[in-house]
Amino acid sequence: MSVLIVGSTALDSIKTPKAENPRLLGGSASHAAVAASFFGPVKLVGVVGDDFPRRYIQLYQRHRIDLTGLQILPGKTFHWSGEYELNMNNRRTLLTELGVFETFTPTLPTAHQTAPFVLLANIAPALQNHVLNQMRRPRFVAADTMDLWLNIALPDLLKLLKRLDAFVLNDSEAHQLTKEDNVFAALKKIHKLGPKYVIIKKGSNGSILSGPQGFFICPAYPLPKVVDPTGAGDSFVGGLMGYLAAANGSIDRSIRRAMIYGSVVASFCCEGFGLGRTAKIKRSQIDQRVRELEKLTAF
Amino acid sequence: MSVLIVGSTALDSIKTPKAENPRLLGGSASHAAVAASFFGPVKLVGVVGDDFPRRYIQLYQRHRIDLTGLQILPGKTFHWSGEYELNMNNRRTLLTELGVFETFTPTLPTAHQTAPFVLLANIAPALQNHVLNQMRRPRFVAADTMDLWLNIALPDLLKLLKRLDAFVLNDSEAHQLTKEDNVFAALKKIHKLGPKYVIIKKGSNGSILSGPQGFFICPAYPLPKVVDPTGAGDSFVGGLMGYLAAANGSIDRSIRRAMIYGSVVASFCCEGFGLGRTAKIKRSQIDQRVRELEKLTAF
Repeated sequence: MSVLIVGSTALDSIKTPKAENPRLLGGSASHAAVAASFFGPVKLVGVVGDDFPRRYIQLYQRHRIDLTGLQILPGKTFHWSGEYELNMNNRRTLLTELGVFETFTPTLPTAHQTAPFVLLANIAPALQNHVLNQMRRPRFVAADTMDLWLNIALPDLLKLLKRLDAFVLNDSEAHQLTKEDNVFAALKKIHKLGPKYVIIKKGSNGSILSGPQGFFICPAYPLPKVVDPTGAGDSFVGGLMGYLAAANGSIDRSIRRAMIYGSVVASFCCEGFGLGRTAKIKRSQIDQRVRELEKLTAF
Repeated sequence: MSVLIVGSTALDSIKTPKAENPRLLGGSASHAAVAASFFGPVKLVGVVGDDFPRRYIQLYQRHRIDLTGLQILPGKTFHWSGEYELNMNNRRTLLTELGVFETFTPTLPTAHQTAPFVLLANIAPALQNHVLNQMRRPRFVAADTMDLWLNIALPDLLKLLKRLDAFVLNDSEAHQLTKEDNVFAALKKIHKLGPKYVIIKKGSNGSILSGPQGFFICPAYPLPKVVDPTGAGDSFVGGLMGYLAAANGSIDRSIRRAMIYGSVVASFCCEGFGLGRTAKIKRSQIDQRVRELEKLTAF
């Protein structure tokens, strides 16, 4: 079954102590869509300017991503510029130019409105709600977010939470939302805000699912070297939703394995700048790392 | 087979935002010995003053811990006092009174010198070396440490590392020792210092083993509430060594499961002040949580 993914489609300029990489393909929807594409059909909903490089359109196309929901408008593509510290854990934003993203209000093509799986990747919760309003009885809706929306758009986010099957956020955001330091205490509080499934991402420490079948402790794939973690969280949730949409049977039967697949795609993402590494992997390489994770966690 | 455990035997006064608990049974060897006792025979090597409460001797005895290596000297027992912040992650030392521990130089009873498993729990590396000098061909030697020794006794610690089978430390200590932020890169560097097995503890994020059979990603048991994490690391390594000593077959065959058992004993430790909770558990409760961890990590 197909996944509809809405989020940001951007150009990322990423500086690390060792390299500078201007105007890479980035944005939450780009990372999530490519990650999901390894498992089945993906419909991308987003907006770019007329400066958006043709090679990035081709990159989407090589991953057979349906681009009928991608608007190309006169003006500039959303451009984010950030710098990582030596340890790759802390980053600071140098520049944010919204460009055509500033007035983005997607109207979904009719064919998109019946997509069974919907991933509301990280964008303003008002836009996530706006997209969800246009969907006709989706089977499974997941959303990601970021600290910015907790700070400036909490009422919209709380409205969204009541409409989700799954909510994905990182540990510091879970703390910010619930004031709980303990991740399991935070999970309990987030369920009360609506979602049946809550997933807390912990970067290199893996992730935790809380759902009807209890907790699942999901490992991160071991990486001795992280080149650029930008988009890893988006790749995780994209891979997860792609795998879920492709799986048969109930969500509960597949969601743990979906997280493992998401975790593995995110590991590839960290090994290159932007989508550099992710865009080159094959499904067989993903399956290989999943088998390794089985061995790495067996006891 | 029996485990010899040397380390500190102390009285801990632990303050949290919610409670004050003076002169609890503490110290690395106390926590590790009780943790190991659930799996098989334990010989404790340590020193206490004549102020050491009789009820704590009885607590060791109830766990069938061999106390022939525990010296009781005129003077005061090592006393540590610390305070935790609200989130239970940060603690600061309020007071350290070494007492009889200041001149501790253990001479092992003859029966102790042939113990097949040796745990050098956290004490000065010079003392860990001193104890190891007295052992006759132990089958498996593991040591734990703390940031203090990395700061003030690094040459002694480096000497010790060449003599160990397994070295256990936490993630911040691994960073301090190797200057590596990445835990897998740090593991590689620590192997070069000697130990065949290196285990990095990451608190509520579990632990990582690196050994001849590659990595093992060991989860922490989910705890929605942490009462007092003091001694959790000692309980982990004590449970690990206790399980290993009781297991048949090769180390490689048992060490992953040993870590899981250590992790579970550590989870009980966090649920009470000092040894309050750990001292009340039964082996069946440990086995129950191990089965839960199997379910919590299955995919």
